[in-house]
Amino acid sequence: MNTTLAWQDAPAPAASRATPSLRTWQPEEFEARLRACESRYHIHHPFNRRLNSGELQPFQVRGWVANRFYYQLCIPQKDAAVLANCPDREERRRWIERILDHDGRGDFEGRNAGGIEAWSRLGQAVGLGHEALWSQRHVQPGVRFAVDAYVNFARSRPWEEAAISSLTEMFAPKIHADRLAGWPSLYPWVQPEGLAYFRQRIPLATRDVEHGLEVARRWACTRERQERALQILHFKLDILWSMLDAIERAYPDDLPMELRP
Amino acid sequence: MNTTLAWQDAPAPAASRATPSLRTWQPEEFEARLRACESRYHIHHPFNRRLNSGELQPFQVRGWVANRFYYQLCIPQKDAAVLANCPDREERRRWIERILDHDGRGDFEGRNAGGIEAWSRLGQAVGLGHEALWSQRHVQPGVRFAVDAYVNFARSRPWEEAAISSLTEMFAPKIHADRLAGWPSLYPWVQPEGLAYFRQRIPLATRDVEHGLEVARRWACTRERQERALQILHFKLDILWSMLDAIERAYPDDLPMELRP
Repeated sequence: MNTTLAWQDAPAPAASRATPSLRTWQPEEFEARLRACESRYHIHHPFNRRLNSGELQPFQVRGWVANRFYYQLCIPQKDAAVLANCPDREERRRWIERILDHDGRGDFEGRNAGGIEAWSRLGQAVGLGHEALWSQRHVQPGVRFAVDAYVNFARSRPWEEAAISSLTEMFAPKIHADRLAGWPSLYPWVQPEGLAYFRQRIPLATRDVEHGLEVARRWACTRERQERALQILHFKLDILWSMLDAIERAYPDDLPMELRP
Repeated sequence: MNTTLAWQDAPAPAASRATPSLRTWQPEEFEARLRACESRYHIHHPFNRRLNSGELQPFQVRGWVANRFYYQLCIPQKDAAVLANCPDREERRRWIERILDHDGRGDFEGRNAGGIEAWSRLGQAVGLGHEALWSQRHVQPGVRFAVDAYVNFARSRPWEEAAISSLTEMFAPKIHADRLAGWPSLYPWVQPEGLAYFRQRIPLATRDVEHGLEVARRWACTRERQERALQILHFKLDILWSMLDAIERAYPDDLPMELRP
């Protein structure tokens, strides 16, 4: 899986590979093709399958939480890059919600504290100290390279392309729901209030996807762009998958005690 | 190994972590500390150890060649980014040799054809078709993310920092010499003329390192910058290591026949 995607960040390679003579897909067919990419979503990665079926040891869950935190930290920068490239005030007024969702808003208390804070509470709930999480000292190089590729993509490409790359959120409600359903019995040692992040994200992901799909449908008005959109979604799916590759490799079942988070 | 490096591309994190009150190392000590980073060089990666001891199957060698080609392709862009950030003509006149070394010069024939061409001949020598190599269809996402991190670093940081990141070449002559010494008997099916790349790189790496160390010594005039230099070298070592992680994962011994390059 995910082994043969040719992708280059700088030039848009779709131009040379697309088939502009073919018909533009109807909106329903285009959306169905986007949704069919679910088969490459990291919900199917061996490490996530083990995570959500209760097979991991506490240090492996902690390793996952500590590494995934780097993704959380970078999301507002990614979204700010989208905003920075977007000349349309109406679109910016909608997109800015994503930054507020993660960095927090208003009094920054409770739900207003934002997704990064919620993830930080998840860190506490799995037994990671504040310093262990925020120092980023457990973050694997392969995780950094993958996440940074996402931020750099958003910085360097048109905002519509970056919006399309965020459409992996189409598949997120299921992965969050799996965690909410399974973790309390599978990992009773995790403090349940730590799971609030997953609960919060379900309605927000649904709203984000609605906006993302609107942008995708409007932007992808030719078959060439529709194929480019699929390629962008593959690129983002590869990022999530590659993160789990690096996490899985860093936390094997028999990792020496002194290296365990 | 390489599990706990906290690294951020954008701000220079050394500033917060360095110890400016400590003495600046003497040039010899600074260089010795740079050279001591060899313990993290990818020569010690399990996949490279297997590669250079003849344990890999042909499809695994081909997978390595096809993926490493992406690095070769990106090196001139990386070096051009260094050049683009360098205001000193004398330095540019030396640095440009690296681009010529890879892209070729003069009549582009024989040795003048450059390193990318030499690697392309290595591809032929291991049985990769021209299209299989140049289409980049075997390149793993994790390899792209790591290599792109290197190019983005060179684009976004001062040219001296990028020069320092190239100092992994200090350790390259040994890895090339291992291949030249071992492959002919370990992998007799590899056409020997394909090994020219490794032979060519040894004197070029030596020349590049001389220049790189000059830049490093001059730029790292405080303990803070010396520590930053070590951090940069670690970052680059992580890139090389992470590439092999992704390659190793993509080509396990029992990969189904239809997925083998």
